[in-house]
Amino acid sequence: MHQKTVQEISDHVGGRIIGDAAVVIESAATLDSAGPGQVTFLSNPKYAPRVQTTQATAVLVSKKVETNACQIIVEDPYYAFMQAVVLLHGHRQHPQTGISKQASVAGSAKIGKNCNIHAFAVVSENTVIGDNCHIYPGVFVGPHVTIGDDCVLYPNAVIYDGCRIGHRVIVQSNASVGQDGFGFATHKGEHHKIPQIGIVILEDDVEIGAGCVVERGTLDNTLIGKGSKLGDSVAIGHGTKIGPHCLLVPQAGVAGSAELGHHCVLGGQVGVVGHIKVGNMVKVGAKAGVINDVPDGATIVGTPAIDANKARRAYALIETLPEIRQKLRALDKQVQRLAGDQET
Amino acid sequence: MHQKTVQEISDHVGGRIIGDAAVVIESAATLDSAGPGQVTFLSNPKYAPRVQTTQATAVLVSKKVETNACQIIVEDPYYAFMQAVVLLHGHRQHPQTGISKQASVAGSAKIGKNCNIHAFAVVSENTVIGDNCHIYPGVFVGPHVTIGDDCVLYPNAVIYDGCRIGHRVIVQSNASVGQDGFGFATHKGEHHKIPQIGIVILEDDVEIGAGCVVERGTLDNTLIGKGSKLGDSVAIGHGTKIGPHCLLVPQAGVAGSAELGHHCVLGGQVGVVGHIKVGNMVKVGAKAGVINDVPDGATIVGTPAIDANKARRAYALIETLPEIRQKLRALDKQVQRLAGDQET
Amino acid sequence: MHQKTVQEISDHVGGRIIGDAAVVIESAATLDSAGPGQVTFLSNPKYAPRVQTTQATAVLVSKKVETNACQIIVEDPYYAFMQAVVLLHGHRQHPQTGISKQASVAGSAKIGKNCNIHAFAVVSENTVIGDNCHIYPGVFVGPHVTIGDDCVLYPNAVIYDGCRIGHRVIVQSNASVGQDGFGFATHKGEHHKIPQIGIVILEDDVEIGAGCVVERGTLDNTLIGKGSKLGDSVAIGHGTKIGPHCLLVPQAGVAGSAELGHHCVLGGQVGVVGHIKVGNMVKVGAKAGVINDVPDGATIVGTPAIDANKARRAYALIETLPEIRQKLRALDKQVQRLAGDQET
Repeated sequence: MHQKTVQEISDHVGGRIIGDAAVVIESAATLDSAGPGQVTFLSNPKYAPRVQTTQATAVLVSKKVETNACQIIVEDPYYAFMQAVVLLHGHRQHPQTGISKQASVAGSAKIGKNCNIHAFAVVSENTVIGDNCHIYPGVFVGPHVTIGDDCVLYPNAVIYDGCRIGHRVIVQSNASVGQDGFGFATHKGEHHKIPQIGIVILEDDVEIGAGCVVERGTLDNTLIGKGSKLGDSVAIGHGTKIGPHCLLVPQAGVAGSAELGHHCVLGGQVGVVGHIKVGNMVKVGAKAGVINDVPDGATIVGTPAIDANKARRAYALIETLPEIRQKLRALDKQVQRLAGDQET
Repeated sequence: MHQKTVQEISDHVGGRIIGDAAVVIESAATLDSAGPGQVTFLSNPKYAPRVQTTQATAVLVSKKVETNACQIIVEDPYYAFMQAVVLLHGHRQHPQTGISKQASVAGSAKIGKNCNIHAFAVVSENTVIGDNCHIYPGVFVGPHVTIGDDCVLYPNAVIYDGCRIGHRVIVQSNASVGQDGFGFATHKGEHHKIPQIGIVILEDDVEIGAGCVVERGTLDNTLIGKGSKLGDSVAIGHGTKIGPHCLLVPQAGVAGSAELGHHCVLGGQVGVVGHIKVGNMVKVGAKAGVINDVPDGATIVGTPAIDANKARRAYALIETLPEIRQKLRALDKQVQRLAGDQET
Repeated sequence: MHQKTVQEISDHVGGRIIGDAAVVIESAATLDSAGPGQVTFLSNPKYAPRVQTTQATAVLVSKKVETNACQIIVEDPYYAFMQAVVLLHGHRQHPQTGISKQASVAGSAKIGKNCNIHAFAVVSENTVIGDNCHIYPGVFVGPHVTIGDDCVLYPNAVIYDGCRIGHRVIVQSNASVGQDGFGFATHKGEHHKIPQIGIVILEDDVEIGAGCVVERGTLDNTLIGKGSKLGDSVAIGHGTKIGPHCLLVPQAGVAGSAELGHHCVLGGQVGVVGHIKVGNMVKVGAKAGVINDVPDGATIVGTPAIDANKARRAYALIETLPEIRQKLRALDKQVQRLAGDQET
């Protein structure tokens, strides 16, 4: 941790100060828990009342508010807060091990400058690894893999043969990238493996969460576009294309040969069936099941997933089904009585 | 396996015998499969008829039943059965390897008495590990981690830097504890990682299933309370608090900053959205999607999750929707005819 | 890659050629992306129009079609295509490392002929491994495990003590087989582990996807039947029996003591509750929740899962619930008016 004055933080995030610029900040905290010596932020207007009562020394806000805390006015308080957290706490410092004698690095592997390859990591034949990479213990990098600069592969991550990884890519622990796609030709009741000759491409700035499983393509490649982030335990099918700058929340799954555009957000446990096209900037609510193509900009929820406004009203009415049925029966009885009366 | 007489088992579980106390039991089995030389149990009254026909030599029951088997009467037959299984079969015996020369243990790490640290396990700088721990091959224990006594970390489990683990904690294979939370500040279409400076705390007697993914907190810590058990492939978000003595069945997920009280049970594939409060002793049916705060003691099912009694009737009626619509149309037609007749 | 003539491919798959048998094929591709020098296939009749315009040099079809490509007529084009992909591209070539000096192989382990046991793999006491097996880095094979011939365990796969694996079994990276089942006896608010003394049996030709979690049985064994294939991140409960030749798509889960017959297909994210029987040749649509026994041959979808034809109509009507309710109210109002009129 690095102490900073409000002035230093404000300068760092490009803000404007209301209050004492010289006061010292030691750490960052959430609005609810922040106390003296801490900086916090207000992003969601519904929490504005909490800023009035916060014990934080400083708060990042988008406009002047009622509060005793020192205010730093910025355009995007959440982004500024991220910058402040980096300034005060920094990103994880990786151990400097160099290339450990307990690692297994193939003779034909090309390793860039300033890499740390830890004990019990394996770098296979004909791999190419860029500069400043961190390969943690238990990582397996298969043959013919290419990895760019400034990547971090956390413990026990596995990259299968031939996959291509860009710059500044992070793969968290126990994730698998490039295992065989789930592809079998069923003949006379037996399932025969189709060689999966495609690879996985992770473009620059991708992050793959812990326990993720990203299948290689059968014939075409599987692609995770630039800047996209996969939460933990996300499953990606063979030949699937995830566009740039998507966010896939933990336990989401996208089946084979599906395509997502750019800036899509899939909530937790969402499922997308194979061979469909999800447009750009689509938002899918947690646990939804997407079974059809989705137009650009749509927000959908439910299983099957439909327009969110429609769905929120509709799915909430499921619990009224017993009443609906009862009402329908009562009405039917009444109508039959009326009809009988009228006939007579 | 250790042979025991019915008397010895009964003494061990604090029971009362009806039948021959001297007969020998060799192993434990389920009610359906138990045969001669085996002990079984009756917990769910609906299986009572099977006790009459069981081939088991002995059966643990809560009250006298009709059966040829020797009966051991106990208050809680399932708990007594667990004790009998331990008595007859024991828990897993861990290999005694000491600290393997093929392990990588940092000079600054403090290791308690009687620990087994296997080949290819990594214990990083400034970790503290208590007595009688088993660290299996491929485990990674990050810097500044603290682990209590009598813990077992199974192969390829990963504990990230700074996490704190209590006594008697079990982490199954390929589980990840303390990886970065899914936290990004999106600015001008790009997602920027927020340093995740919180840790994960696993309190005493916690078990983490194989393939689980437990994120570290962004600013606050992620907490798994004393005695809680996570099944396989459970995902826990950053800053989430799971109270003590909860059971989370495999593939359940709890998003960031959600809170569960004590003694909650989440069924398989349940999803809990972020930032909500689930009370104490709440039961959530398999596959449910919990999107709102839940009061103490509630039992809920479905997506969105609602009161179980209501939900079971309501969700089962979804399949009648075609009939409901048809009936409604027929009724409408009839009413319009009636209205027309009345007018004339 | 191995170049082949159309004649050679046709001979290999038992086909009949329409066109130039001497033309050379270099690789296989999908119908959409195939170009000159490539072979593709038509399996789903709805894509027939694309065969007319394909740039592929050859196409595997079940009957003569309109196309400029050379045609190879076969009974089962998808199966023939699989054979052609194997002929042209082959299955993955595994590195020949022999038994690495950096592996840890117990003295009492019996290793068959021609095995490759990579660096940092662990083979524990009293294991038996057949011929021609590939044990990749970071794999843990526990004590008393038996593995047949021609198996492949990919990096960081974990096989717990005592499990039995047949011939030609593949376990992908970071999968766990045989960890403790989720079995606890709850007594006075605390959950006590029941020793899980069953094992996991993987029969011949089984494949276990990356990140899968297959629990050992409590008392009975967990079984994955001959030829069954589990996609990535599939969870199998303790004592569960999966019949032969099943396909479980990624992120599916089957709870403890459930039974599946032969040739079942579970879609992605399907959940099957414990202690139920799913018949033979049952198909379960993606994301379905199966809560009751299922008869042979059924196709079911939805949560709760019901007959697919019924379900597709019913679940699609959820979005009309607001209209249904509105219509019902309007009708009710009208009927009450009619009833009032009639009374007067």
